[in-house]
Amino acid sequence: MPVDPVALTAELIRCPSVTPAEGGALRLLEGLLTGAGFNCTRVDRNGVPNLFARWGAKGAARTFGFNGHTDVVPVGDAAAWSRDPFGGEIVGAEIWGRGATDMKSGVAAFAAAACDFVRQTPPDGAVILTITGDEEGPGKDGTVALLDWMAAQGEAMSVCLVGEPTCPEVLGDMMKIGRRGSMTAFFTVQGVQGHSAYPHRAKNPLHALVSLLGRLTAEPLDGGTEHFDASTLQVTTIDCGNPANNVIPAKAGATVNIRFNDAHSSASLTERLQAEVARVEAETGVTVEMRVEVSGESFVTPPGAFVRLVAAAVEAETGVVPALSTSGGTSDARFVKDHCPVVEFGLVGKTMHQVDERVEVAQIHALKAVYARILQEYFA
Amino acid sequence: MPVDPVALTAELIRCPSVTPAEGGALRLLEGLLTGAGFNCTRVDRNGVPNLFARWGAKGAARTFGFNGHTDVVPVGDAAAWSRDPFGGEIVGAEIWGRGATDMKSGVAAFAAAACDFVRQTPPDGAVILTITGDEEGPGKDGTVALLDWMAAQGEAMSVCLVGEPTCPEVLGDMMKIGRRGSMTAFFTVQGVQGHSAYPHRAKNPLHALVSLLGRLTAEPLDGGTEHFDASTLQVTTIDCGNPANNVIPAKAGATVNIRFNDAHSSASLTERLQAEVARVEAETGVTVEMRVEVSGESFVTPPGAFVRLVAAAVEAETGVVPALSTSGGTSDARFVKDHCPVVEFGLVGKTMHQVDERVEVAQIHALKAVYARILQEYFA
Repeated sequence: MPVDPVALTAELIRCPSVTPAEGGALRLLEGLLTGAGFNCTRVDRNGVPNLFARWGAKGAARTFGFNGHTDVVPVGDAAAWSRDPFGGEIVGAEIWGRGATDMKSGVAAFAAAACDFVRQTPPDGAVILTITGDEEGPGKDGTVALLDWMAAQGEAMSVCLVGEPTCPEVLGDMMKIGRRGSMTAFFTVQGVQGHSAYPHRAKNPLHALVSLLGRLTAEPLDGGTEHFDASTLQVTTIDCGNPANNVIPAKAGATVNIRFNDAHSSASLTERLQAEVARVEAETGVTVEMRVEVSGESFVTPPGAFVRLVAAAVEAETGVVPALSTSGGTSDARFVKDHCPVVEFGLVGKTMHQVDERVEVAQIHALKAVYARILQEYFA
Repeated sequence: MPVDPVALTAELIRCPSVTPAEGGALRLLEGLLTGAGFNCTRVDRNGVPNLFARWGAKGAARTFGFNGHTDVVPVGDAAAWSRDPFGGEIVGAEIWGRGATDMKSGVAAFAAAACDFVRQTPPDGAVILTITGDEEGPGKDGTVALLDWMAAQGEAMSVCLVGEPTCPEVLGDMMKIGRRGSMTAFFTVQGVQGHSAYPHRAKNPLHALVSLLGRLTAEPLDGGTEHFDASTLQVTTIDCGNPANNVIPAKAGATVNIRFNDAHSSASLTERLQAEVARVEAETGVTVEMRVEVSGESFVTPPGAFVRLVAAAVEAETGVVPALSTSGGTSDARFVKDHCPVVEFGLVGKTMHQVDERVEVAQIHALKAVYARILQEYFA
């Protein structure tokens, strides 16, 4: 009997797996997959639960991978929900609850597709599922831990599909073939305090910051590249906390977040920021401390056989030609891309992270069908 | 017997008259001045103590005025003082205590000079002393209350000398013939919150602020005028308080302090700021709320007979030609200037508002001599 991806989604929603709680979600999947002939291993690291499952021989020439997560963001204001966020209730055409879109439904759809596929048409190769309990949190011991463990064990995927929600409006309208990089720069400017009436005796760190940030925001970083939208740079905070109008403050700080395409790297952007910092230091006499945190480099899986295969399956099942996008935030694909070609396809994520998260059950069935077709085509 | 201005300073320092406490300081002066033939009236308003004293006939054609204050700023860290801040101790060549420079010594010097003068050489005219107990605080019911009361009573000064510390290095090196104006603009920018990865769906208030402040600080407001240094504009704080790098904030604020000369008025500068605000609103789509607080307009008593008289007396007593300055912060001269020509001359104020405030006793004697000579020359 085929696995019902909607019933499985409902069961997963009922597992209270707010990051980093396992909540029973991975245990549920482990049971299902083991029953379908998968070899399962829990790859927990530093308290973060992760599940590795393989059907078929280790090291098979053709090994198809899925990646996803069962952890969810907190419910927020529970009283604001119209339904129990951990109820998994089906009301009319929709299933409700935290994780209904992001992404217990995606995990259920690929787990169901994989179970049915290996039972009905056992392929010449292997199918691997990597499912983490920390994608929404720090993510340091989630998919990264699975990939580290796999490398150590000699496990590998030939290609990988991440089941995150990717469609803006209707199922099938977008798949992701890469992601922009993301980095954050924290600036602390040390000037010289003084009286507002005597600025020549002080060095105003805010004037230096305004100059620095003015230069950084004056021009776009680029106009976009073949596969990417234009990079963006946003000042996310400026803080000083000086309550006295007659005092020039000694110190001020600002934070800048950059989403960058393949015209840049975090290293090239850091160099660019450092050059502007040096210029402002020279011009104003202040000292600027800059700290950079890199969330991920940009990457792209250039349209080729794998991308074409996934796009064709999406079109065949949904009737929609998916846009090949690199837009949006980050996902665990940024880790997978160091191991094998990776694309992302999932349902419409309009209510993800919101109160009253929910999705049409028809989308979950259709998503399972897309995943099933991808498996069939890949091993055809 | 002449009044000893140093002993009087010491007695005043022993009165704990931290704004707005009277502390016995005005009562002490009232006793002294009444004994010297002054007609004294306490002109308290809203709990702020003020003293008006006149020798001679009300409405005299030649009426010389002095203005000063007996209130002092708090001692700050009392444990950090080397001497009792309210001790008025004389140690070696110096007298110590809060108000030793700002400006119990100045009040003592002009009160002593005035008492001696009217007794020794009774002038054909009147001498008025206006002494407030709130110059260091809000100042809404201090010298302003005295001037309001005087206007209502038909009391007037022909000219007025404010006894604030004015000399940067040595007694005599500077007098003030005006002051720059001071105003503060508070900007609150309302944008549209959003995700850092999708700036086209948000309106970043920080980018609007950086643009606005960049324009305001790009060029000097002017290059100075005949009697004034260049106007200055300083950003004194920028605050947003957004802790999330992946969020474009909805709102941010900034404060700008302007010290302006007679090339501007608070009205012309407000108009200028409003024009920049309108430009930024039009360019970025944010809403900018601007609130302006005016501390005082700029003013100048152009070098003429009164200024020359004071400068000549300073030079005769100290051997130093005073610079005619309009520099520095604000003083109660900004209120007096609406009533009569006003200049400021006082001692070297290096330790004003600091821990271990103190001044050479010789300066106080010399200051009394300068004030005495000014009275003699004025009524000569």
